[in-house]
Amino acid sequence: MSGTVTPGTIHGVGLGPGDVDLMSLRAHRLLSNARHVAYFRKAGATGRARKTVDGILPDHAVEFAMEYPVTTEIPVSHPDYNAALSGFYAGCAAHLRALAEAGEDVVVLCEGDPFFYGSFMHLYTRLKEDVPVQVVPAITGMSAAWTASGQPITWGDDVLSVLMATLPEDELVRHMAAADALVVMKIGRNIDKVRRALRAAGKYDAAWLVEYASMEGQTVQKLSDAEGHMPPYFSVVLVHGNGRRP
Amino acid sequence: MSGTVTPGTIHGVGLGPGDVDLMSLRAHRLLSNARHVAYFRKAGATGRARKTVDGILPDHAVEFAMEYPVTTEIPVSHPDYNAALSGFYAGCAAHLRALAEAGEDVVVLCEGDPFFYGSFMHLYTRLKEDVPVQVVPAITGMSAAWTASGQPITWGDDVLSVLMATLPEDELVRHMAAADALVVMKIGRNIDKVRRALRAAGKYDAAWLVEYASMEGQTVQKLSDAEGHMPPYFSVVLVHGNGRRP
Ligand SMILES: C[S@@+](CC[C@H](N)C(=O)[O-])C[C@H]1O[C@@H](n2cnc3c(N)ncnc32)[C@H](O)[C@@H]1O
Ligand SMILES: C[S@@+](CC[C@H](N)C(=O)[O-])C[C@H]1O[C@@H](n2cnc3c(N)ncnc32)[C@H](O)[C@@H]1O
Repeated sequence: MSGTVTPGTIHGVGLGPGDVDLMSLRAHRLLSNARHVAYFRKAGATGRARKTVDGILPDHAVEFAMEYPVTTEIPVSHPDYNAALSGFYAGCAAHLRALAEAGEDVVVLCEGDPFFYGSFMHLYTRLKEDVPVQVVPAITGMSAAWTASGQPITWGDDVLSVLMATLPEDELVRHMAAADALVVMKIGRNIDKVRRALRAAGKYDAAWLVEYASMEGQTVQKLSDAEGHMPPYFSVVLVHGNGRRP
Repeated sequence: MSGTVTPGTIHGVGLGPGDVDLMSLRAHRLLSNARHVAYFRKAGATGRARKTVDGILPDHAVEFAMEYPVTTEIPVSHPDYNAALSGFYAGCAAHLRALAEAGEDVVVLCEGDPFFYGSFMHLYTRLKEDVPVQVVPAITGMSAAWTASGQPITWGDDVLSVLMATLPEDELVRHMAAADALVVMKIGRNIDKVRRALRAAGKYDAAWLVEYASMEGQTVQKLSDAEGHMPPYFSVVLVHGNGRRP
């Protein structure tokens, strides 16, 4: 670990929506040759990203599981929540920085596209000034979702807005009403709020619910056919655009 | 071509943003084994999609170049424009339908993700009731663009809006002001309108111009550093979100 070691590179590698066959050639090659692999997961769980690359990683790869601190008791808006996460990301970044400074390349597994609402961004901002960091884009979960829906998401001059279900209801309504096509992510416990907002925006009957896009257990249904159902983490609500189509 | 032939499948295959290394494993496999390949191009040009797959297609693949009718003299809003395009797509679809009905699989090359403002959608809607059609999602041009920009596009609860530069200026301003993060596509001759709209929405100084993302000739610059420059077809303007980041 002398100061003259050429630093390794941290690769933030987008795995795509879940189906290994939808991974990029570059991602597949980086994973197949990985010496160090890092990934986020809930404490105790295997983690979706790690499971996705089973059978691709070499046997001798050294794994670093980054386990999210348990924050379920703290409201997201509370400063303690931010402090817990901030400390966690700083610790993970320190570990990866040390590996890179020792000359090791590290692959960090990212669900979907790393720069699109991903957790890797919190490591990226903490590392990019210190060591080489490369990001591999990927197919997003929403692309797999609209493909699964069997309908193009946008046509002609359609405006597409991507909304997090965690937004306040009035903001959801405002953005839902203004756009032609919609993708709503992070649904889960916010599903009732999303339903109300879509109704208020006059788009409830046009909305689709896609769960586990491109993954085992994929489902596609009209949102109105799924009343009373609580969607899993991997689900999006879609409203397709209706723009110009010669 | 008897009625008992098992129909072939039309595969709308997303090639991704341009760099072959960012193609999915599935796309690469379908291309490597293709017997029939169809692609759009301007009359006389090789076409970007076709060029991308040079060296991947087998030598014996039968090619069908779908050349856009010349419509430069007709305004987009004129009925003749729509009629010309509609006839063109119908003709292409008829050719592909005949191949599929004769039992042939066909790969249709699509830039980026087929269901995201793509031309393949116009074939898809004309074919899907008649013959099997499969769509392979892909990395979008915008994903490659924000990756190239070296900054995550969205954080936390950021609202992302995707806008076509072909929209009327007042609509651009309204949507630009309402969203946290922006992607503006189909820039070209609309660049001055895009600049004015971004200024009116107070976002001009935060805007980036990315040309040829992941392609040869990729450039990334602040939009304000590119005054007087007319961007090519393959360019996007980005405004990154600034949401919650622990
Ligand atoms: C923190 S965001 C990460 C998005 C990811 N970086 C991407 O590019 O798709 C997680 C949300 O993405 C959506 N998502 C990601 N992959 C999905 C899939 N395969 N099927 C359905 N939804 C998915 C869900 O809405 C989920 O709550
Ligand atoms: C008709 S849309 C097709 C979008 C495509 N289906 C996709 O998923 O990216 C064409 C526009 O996409 C954008 N685009 C696509 N690929 C790009 C790239 N590699 N670099 C920059 N812009 C790109 C440009 O704004 C272009 O005008």
